[in-house]
Amino acid sequence: MTEVDVALDVPSGAPARVATPAPGDPRLARLSLNQKTVDRWSFREAVDGCVAAGLPAIGAWREPVAEVGLDSAARWVREAGIRVSSLCRGGFFTGAGDLDRRARHDDNRRALDEAATLGAPCLVLVPGGLPTGDRDLGAARGRAADEVEALVPHALDVGVRLAIEPMHPIFAADRGVVSTLGQALDIAEPLPLEAVGVVVDTFHVWWEPGVEDQIARAGSRIASYQVCEWITPLPSDALLSRGMMGDGHIDFAHLTACVAAAGYRGDVEVEIFNADVWAADGNAVVATLARRYVELVEPHL
Amino acid sequence: MTEVDVALDVPSGAPARVATPAPGDPRLARLSLNQKTVDRWSFREAVDGCVAAGLPAIGAWREPVAEVGLDSAARWVREAGIRVSSLCRGGFFTGAGDLDRRARHDDNRRALDEAATLGAPCLVLVPGGLPTGDRDLGAARGRAADEVEALVPHALDVGVRLAIEPMHPIFAADRGVVSTLGQALDIAEPLPLEAVGVVVDTFHVWWEPGVEDQIARAGSRIASYQVCEWITPLPSDALLSRGMMGDGHIDFAHLTACVAAAGYRGDVEVEIFNADVWAADGNAVVATLARRYVELVEPHL
Repeated sequence: MTEVDVALDVPSGAPARVATPAPGDPRLARLSLNQKTVDRWSFREAVDGCVAAGLPAIGAWREPVAEVGLDSAARWVREAGIRVSSLCRGGFFTGAGDLDRRARHDDNRRALDEAATLGAPCLVLVPGGLPTGDRDLGAARGRAADEVEALVPHALDVGVRLAIEPMHPIFAADRGVVSTLGQALDIAEPLPLEAVGVVVDTFHVWWEPGVEDQIARAGSRIASYQVCEWITPLPSDALLSRGMMGDGHIDFAHLTACVAAAGYRGDVEVEIFNADVWAADGNAVVATLARRYVELVEPHL
Repeated sequence: MTEVDVALDVPSGAPARVATPAPGDPRLARLSLNQKTVDRWSFREAVDGCVAAGLPAIGAWREPVAEVGLDSAARWVREAGIRVSSLCRGGFFTGAGDLDRRARHDDNRRALDEAATLGAPCLVLVPGGLPTGDRDLGAARGRAADEVEALVPHALDVGVRLAIEPMHPIFAADRGVVSTLGQALDIAEPLPLEAVGVVVDTFHVWWEPGVEDQIARAGSRIASYQVCEWITPLPSDALLSRGMMGDGHIDFAHLTACVAAAGYRGDVEVEIFNADVWAADGNAVVATLARRYVELVEPHL
């Protein structure tokens, strides 16, 4: 009996369609585990999980890194022989968060420093939503653009790229006022290429009219490629509405081919916010996403 | 004690900020009750509710009209002295529904006939989502455009305009593959102005980058202006996630001024899908929406 006969995909419990790739499988060479996909794991557990599954990279989040200490985290990934593909997350520029503008700028500078210490090539920027009672979306978008620009000198100093993440319009009010890849590129393009890029996250941009043209336009601005699925019916908590690749409506072959054609050669992060995924066993989640990745994404890179 | 002191807004139960406009109030001259806002009401109850509240128009839905019979419905609105501002809904072009292409085309022709009988100036078109297992969003969008075009001759024959409704990307997979006003206009513009227009629904387009420019571009293509609110946290059922104007994040003054500047002089429909609104007393819902409309929308028309 081969592995494909016994492995089950999580959280669905369906039989896997392909065998779990073993550590050392060349198809895993660009696969990164975004830590948020295994939300219950500590940073150490996530690093160990990557090593055990043969994933060469991890997408780190600031909070779990802070819990174990930045230097320890940096040492662990170095000793484990894996990369940090990105640090999540900076941003929240629009005043919707708990920090004022100056404090937020300083916090984003610290996030860039942390990314540099971890060896991450980019800091993912979540633009932020509308402040309570504020309905001026245009002004909030303007503030986001201004704050990205203000961070450029420090990004250049520490050699970490700012990666603007356009977010699905479901989040325009309360999380990310930059709603399309086109809009993210409008912000990025006047700024130095080495300092400012964009995130292409399939969940966020799959519906965007002309997304193929925007990915081509992005070209070497693509700082990070993240994959996760749009599923229906949408889970009741919008923040946890992302699915495992293959369980929904996104054409990963098509979007991945576009990203590859744009020249992207970096890591591919799997980032899934989903209560069922979080409730499942972490190692089983990693095995499932590795199978789905080699089936649906990797052949098109 | 004036009315404003005692009226409560529903479903919130908060005190109303303005007095309920009385029947005959000139500020109500363009306000239409989309029947879906009072989902428990029959068509007859909705017509009577409009008359009682002084609303001069109703946005009709096919199913409740069919329940009472088309001719009865047409006679009731005529006798009540109100207008039918639109008929909802045609469309579902993409094959995700239960009818095949030919049957759907014929059904849309019947919907146009029904709109003509009711005296509605337009038929609202919900484009439809992706068929089960189909991930080719571009092809589905192409089918939607083709099917709109195929309906143009009959629309011209019966004198009812096809009104393409771009839908919030939250619905791109399962309900409406046309995701932006810009995309709807790309479909409409090659077709005759008198046969094909677009719906500007604040819920669907408020987040769209450059929506001001798209509304101006739409100009006399605007066949219907619908108002309802984006609220957070998003209700758990995405289909029922719309709120009462003023309870959320949309700048109605700004969008309404854009629509007015584009030259729109038609009715303004309030269309709210929300479980709490549906559970409330219908007359109280109509009174609340009339207050919110005269406070937030009408001054900017």
